[in-house]
Amino acid sequence: MSAKVSPFAPSAYPALPAVDGVRFASTEAGIRYSNRRDLLLATFVPGTVVAGVFTRSKCPSAPVEWDRDRLAGGRARALVVNSGNANAFTGRKGREATRLTAEAAARAVGCGPDEIFLASTGVIGEPLDPVPFERHLDRLAREAAPDGILDAARAIMTTDTYPKAVTRSVEIAGATVTLNGIAKGAGMIAPDMATMLSFLFTDAAASQATLQAALADAVAESFNAITIDSDTSTSDTVLLFATGTAAARGAPALEEAGAEALEAFRGALASLCRELAHMVVKDGEGATKFVEVRVRGAVSDQSAKRIARAIADSPLVKTALAGEDANWGRVVMAVGKAGEPADRDRLSIWFGDFRVAHEGERDPAYSEAAVSAYMKAPELAITADLGLGDGAARIWTCDLTHDYVAINADYRS
Amino acid sequence: MSAKVSPFAPSAYPALPAVDGVRFASTEAGIRYSNRRDLLLATFVPGTVVAGVFTRSKCPSAPVEWDRDRLAGGRARALVVNSGNANAFTGRKGREATRLTAEAAARAVGCGPDEIFLASTGVIGEPLDPVPFERHLDRLAREAAPDGILDAARAIMTTDTYPKAVTRSVEIAGATVTLNGIAKGAGMIAPDMATMLSFLFTDAAASQATLQAALADAVAESFNAITIDSDTSTSDTVLLFATGTAAARGAPALEEAGAEALEAFRGALASLCRELAHMVVKDGEGATKFVEVRVRGAVSDQSAKRIARAIADSPLVKTALAGEDANWGRVVMAVGKAGEPADRDRLSIWFGDFRVAHEGERDPAYSEAAVSAYMKAPELAITADLGLGDGAARIWTCDLTHDYVAINADYRS
Repeated sequence: MSAKVSPFAPSAYPALPAVDGVRFASTEAGIRYSNRRDLLLATFVPGTVVAGVFTRSKCPSAPVEWDRDRLAGGRARALVVNSGNANAFTGRKGREATRLTAEAAARAVGCGPDEIFLASTGVIGEPLDPVPFERHLDRLAREAAPDGILDAARAIMTTDTYPKAVTRSVEIAGATVTLNGIAKGAGMIAPDMATMLSFLFTDAAASQATLQAALADAVAESFNAITIDSDTSTSDTVLLFATGTAAARGAPALEEAGAEALEAFRGALASLCRELAHMVVKDGEGATKFVEVRVRGAVSDQSAKRIARAIADSPLVKTALAGEDANWGRVVMAVGKAGEPADRDRLSIWFGDFRVAHEGERDPAYSEAAVSAYMKAPELAITADLGLGDGAARIWTCDLTHDYVAINADYRS
Repeated sequence: MSAKVSPFAPSAYPALPAVDGVRFASTEAGIRYSNRRDLLLATFVPGTVVAGVFTRSKCPSAPVEWDRDRLAGGRARALVVNSGNANAFTGRKGREATRLTAEAAARAVGCGPDEIFLASTGVIGEPLDPVPFERHLDRLAREAAPDGILDAARAIMTTDTYPKAVTRSVEIAGATVTLNGIAKGAGMIAPDMATMLSFLFTDAAASQATLQAALADAVAESFNAITIDSDTSTSDTVLLFATGTAAARGAPALEEAGAEALEAFRGALASLCRELAHMVVKDGEGATKFVEVRVRGAVSDQSAKRIARAIADSPLVKTALAGEDANWGRVVMAVGKAGEPADRDRLSIWFGDFRVAHEGERDPAYSEAAVSAYMKAPELAITADLGLGDGAARIWTCDLTHDYVAINADYRS
């Protein structure tokens, strides 16, 4: 397993303002490894509203099932996250572990188990022992403090090479509302320690319906618009917790604050999710390139998204990116294999601002030397114009490198 | 680029019996590289019937379009194949190159251009110069001989590390009918020298409709049931040429030979295609493992095939295979992401004969040591039983290794 840190790792983290009503504590519970922060408790003031988006896997983990069943209640008092074990494909024992963990957290925080949300990431198929949770959660509830968010981001890491924490703020009727978020990758995906998790915290006051709609839209253009290796975790989870404490400082509930304020909040949430999603891609297993794939001129937005995904998921496109090779022939191949309406003789392709192919042929004007120089940049854009309609989409991805193979070829053992 | 030879390369090739009415000649035409056999001419006696199956890419190469348009005629007098340049995404110039090549071959062989079939494999987007074809085809037509099939297999190679040639025979009314086939990989796929091509030759007499139906069925369970990296070439082509010369030795046309003889021929064709398809996978770029993925208990055969493909295409499953890691959690993930009906709590998984997961949980009886020892074998089987219905499918694939990245990360330059 590679111990290299991503070339995109930030050199420093700005201090994040606290979100009133949210407290964090984390510890080394020894779930799979020693000397590794692997258990996070976040607590929320009474009345905190929760929204969530989960993996579409047909084989979801036990915590995903637990959370889905609790989302209808719409209220949360605590979040418990462990790394090291995904509690997925663990059958009846897995369901039992989620129940025992939620009960222990509820006792520690002083609420009902239906107000506890859970997430687990790590190895699939190993029974998760709930005893360490019971032992630590009381203490974590007592120690929880408003300023522990960077340690919280560290506690949920698996193959991530750096913690991911981002903040936004927005004015609602003259009062500042804060949105903080943390996330972990890093294979996007995947059983063996690479599930995508993100937890978002705000002091905005809002109904569950408003938050759920805003979260679903934000996720569609961020966490659901990235791909590292096309695999989908059993455990992918995004949860948004809104404490409503900004109301005490004069911020009305989003439903009463007017359309402009609601749009500002939705815009800040979308921007927060997008930055976190980009950080996940940039810390993709073995990644050395961050690539925006843009498709336009497709017959519909959905068609454009499928074509963009075919390009972004193609192992041949991704290995060419790793080799800094402006191999637009592979982009043609990926467009062709997407199964969506395409007309070879109308297709044009750009790397960055360099048009390399136009209307079904190599662009006679393109300079191989200039494009090759462009490919050496760490952040790249590939654009495909189908020339058929107005459908457009963006997907973010990374390259496929030797280190991806090294990280994944021997993980479990 | 790696120069390693596949561990599955045969140590020797059996002498293939000639198919009466088929002659081969190949040469170094310098299409892209010097000192490399890159141009193949195969000629057929008058009356030879042709069937074909092509890529489903929406951006097919010019030769694929040429062949598709000629298939309705159903007759072939020659096949011209070049490696080094795919003549794909080459616009009007590409169509012109196919026409000029076919005309040159028709002059050399003495037939109309509509009886010439073409295939090209190599770089996408570079104009293909037809002049070398015109220069060489006259000579090749004169030199063509019945016994050049192994050199023919070599002439169509790109990143393949060994030539692929297979033979079968079948008795039709007491007369021996021969089927020979050649194929090339090696990324299955892919613009940059990895298109899958296969050419099959038989002396059986049959109508185009009979041959086309037999070929389509054989391809479905062979070339269309393999995946190396999930990418689809612009140029994939399988052509079957039937000279009908066995009729002179007493073999009636397949339509008149009776149901049993027709089934025998179809079985031999299917077996020929399967062996060639397996050879393509075993020579997959960087492959060290040959893996049969079996899915059963799905709601339909089509659903089973989609699930098998999700497992076989998963980069995480494929890197685990490279690491000889019995990582069945990644198989669960792949089943879950396939989008097909699945019930986690009915799912069982085997590596070889070792059941590692049963009804939604790790199989308590499985021995990690025994399964780990099994994973060291070069040929492996993964079985997933969905426990829902009677749908079943098989897909063959290989592992994803460092060498795949090495071969593909810097190919064009």
